[in-house]
Amino acid sequence: MSDKHDDAADQDRLTRGRARLSEITGQNGEAVMAALEGVAPDFAKYIFEFGYGDVYSRPGLDLRTRLLATVAGLVCLGHAQRELEVHIGSALNVGASREEVVETIMQMALYAGFPAALDALLIAKKVFSARDVV
Amino acid sequence: MSDKHDDAADQDRLTRGRARLSEITGQNGEAVMAALEGVAPDFAKYIFEFGYGDVYSRPGLDLRTRLLATVAGLVCLGHAQRELEVHIGSALNVGASREEVVETIMQMALYAGFPAALDALLIAKKVFSARDVV
Amino acid sequence: MSDKHDDAADQDRLTRGRARLSEITGQNGEAVMAALEGVAPDFAKYIFEFGYGDVYSRPGLDLRTRLLATVAGLVCLGHAQRELEVHIGSALNVGASREEVVETIMQMALYAGFPAALDALLIAKKVFSARDVV
Amino acid sequence: MSDKHDDAADQDRLTRGRARLSEITGQNGEAVMAALEGVAPDFAKYIFEFGYGDVYSRPGLDLRTRLLATVAGLVCLGHAQRELEVHIGSALNVGASREEVVETIMQMALYAGFPAALDALLIAKKVFSARDVV
Amino acid sequence: MSDKHDDAADQDRLTRGRARLSEITGQNGEAVMAALEGVAPDFAKYIFEFGYGDVYSRPGLDLRTRLLATVAGLVCLGHAQRELEVHIGSALNVGASREEVVETIMQMALYAGFPAALDALLIAKKVFSARDVV
Amino acid sequence: MSDKHDDAADQDRLTRGRARLSEITGQNGEAVMAALEGVAPDFAKYIFEFGYGDVYSRPGLDLRTRLLATVAGLVCLGHAQRELEVHIGSALNVGASREEVVETIMQMALYAGFPAALDALLIAKKVFSARDVV
Repeated sequence: MSDKHDDAADQDRLTRGRARLSEITGQNGEAVMAALEGVAPDFAKYIFEFGYGDVYSRPGLDLRTRLLATVAGLVCLGHAQRELEVHIGSALNVGASREEVVETIMQMALYAGFPAALDALLIAKKVFSARDVV
Repeated sequence: MSDKHDDAADQDRLTRGRARLSEITGQNGEAVMAALEGVAPDFAKYIFEFGYGDVYSRPGLDLRTRLLATVAGLVCLGHAQRELEVHIGSALNVGASREEVVETIMQMALYAGFPAALDALLIAKKVFSARDVV
Repeated sequence: MSDKHDDAADQDRLTRGRARLSEITGQNGEAVMAALEGVAPDFAKYIFEFGYGDVYSRPGLDLRTRLLATVAGLVCLGHAQRELEVHIGSALNVGASREEVVETIMQMALYAGFPAALDALLIAKKVFSARDVV
Repeated sequence: MSDKHDDAADQDRLTRGRARLSEITGQNGEAVMAALEGVAPDFAKYIFEFGYGDVYSRPGLDLRTRLLATVAGLVCLGHAQRELEVHIGSALNVGASREEVVETIMQMALYAGFPAALDALLIAKKVFSARDVV
Repeated sequence: MSDKHDDAADQDRLTRGRARLSEITGQNGEAVMAALEGVAPDFAKYIFEFGYGDVYSRPGLDLRTRLLATVAGLVCLGHAQRELEVHIGSALNVGASREEVVETIMQMALYAGFPAALDALLIAKKVFSARDVV
Repeated sequence: MSDKHDDAADQDRLTRGRARLSEITGQNGEAVMAALEGVAPDFAKYIFEFGYGDVYSRPGLDLRTRLLATVAGLVCLGHAQRELEVHIGSALNVGASREEVVETIMQMALYAGFPAALDALLIAKKVFSARDVV
């Protein structure tokens, strides 16, 4: 019984999560699944189910603010440059302006120091440029 | 000449910064000055001038989002619990709801892990409770 | 339909997670729920469901190693002292010896530096002492 | 007298450390020495003597668990990707299975966040693939 | 009035900061401005004004010690490798010897762990080698 | 044979390390040994032997600069407040002025953010005050 419940509900969370991932990142999750194939496919499932199906699907905070908060958090982590690149794009996808992304990053210089903020600004420049080309 | 310019402009940035600090934190900066008196009074000046007079006085991002981004960043730093307590209060002061603060923190579990988010939620609870008493 | 699935399966993950939490920490989760009550009850649910129901319920790695790995990770985070106290206890609960906990922490001096390891050893001493009293 | 003692004992720790390094990493330490030659040769000596001759030569915790703990710690540091690549290999060398390495990393998502764990899983995939080729 | 003061004094801090930057890094700031052009030109201004015009222009600590302290701090941050490369060069520019840079980095192994120190030593080797070629 | 060498040389490093510890911190190491007694006495030995007997006994960098670099590094770690308190005192013991300690900390605001620097300044104030009383 339990397993049947789990299977069905995990499918629901998975479906909701992948839709949310697609809405936010503009990607359908295939790249994450491909990257983790053969090493940790369940981790892709957790990203979809818990990350996007649970947390990013919560009401109570608009997506634009959620993504700007994510950008701020990733700047402060310091080491998450690939993730920062993805979510600067996500912030733009859900309605944040380039200026808002830049202001969010600059402000983090106060909390995480100038090098972390400078690195993030250079990533933002790269993301913006890639969108100008397209 | 240079010094005169500096004195006048620093005064302007200082005035603007202390006003901004007051608007955001609900405090007038005396506590920071008192804490740093006798050890590093210039550091209080830099907080006012650069932190609040320059960065927090920039246009381009509304204060509510700025403070939620700050909360997110401080959760990810992990060690800044006193600052987090102050700025959870600041976020409420500039128009964020309690729910928005909580959602911002919970989302950071994805990026900084559960312990950092849990610690921050307990600080938020403390800040909220203190406001209920008052 | 979806909601019914979710409710049932979340219940399953929740039940499994709370049982796993109890097995690992020796506590039944009431303390976590009480701490988060009124601020973020869903966060307690995520700890149970995702943390213990999903991740800590996975096969493929014995619980003793899982908990020693957790202790190592928390030492390297540096800021998670409350969590470290809980999980040093958990490591003992699931079969690690005190010596193994101490060796795990000491080794982290190589990766996270001496202060982080020293802090953790003092927490371990506190956990061990509390168990001697009981 | 003191210097003679030091020279002899340092030689003992060095010999023991290089043997341990070789057992764990499958390398004989020449690469580390070459990398540090001309800049900090004593640092290679400390890695051998203190890292491997003292800490990794301690009884009280089996090597498989030591290395899985190291993997967990390095994931939580966030910035140590080269070291993580080496020690994922070391974990396999001393008897951990690929599945155990992956489980250790996935579990760290709870403590250090998803981006740190995802980065580490991609490094693990690279290490595993390199071994398949050989 | 205020704006005129600000403009004049900011110009003074900017001028002083760019001169200090040039003295310390041996560069004139054009690279920073070019890197940030089109994304966050004000951030270059803050680096010049606050970083170099305010903080690095303070009396009370000689530049050689300031830069060795900066190298130590950047090693402990762990993620700031580009900045570390710049400021290892800066330390040499303001009178620190290569040996002093290496000693500073090696000592940080005690506080930030061996991987962070080893990474920094390899960056130092690269900086030293580039100067030998020139 | 090997063990005899080790015992004698470890004794030499231990003796040299405890003397160096005493010179730097003004304490004789008994507090560290007492704190670790019953949990990890070997860790105290490593602090004395490797930390003070090896690293802090190296030539090539004066003790005043070594300790200011340590203060800078500990500010950037963020979580090492107890260690920071000890080593602010150590810096004063080996000839750094209060002003130099304060300047070192303030400068780290650029690299580790304002909260880490502010916390450290408050610890410095506490250390200075304790010395005024004595």
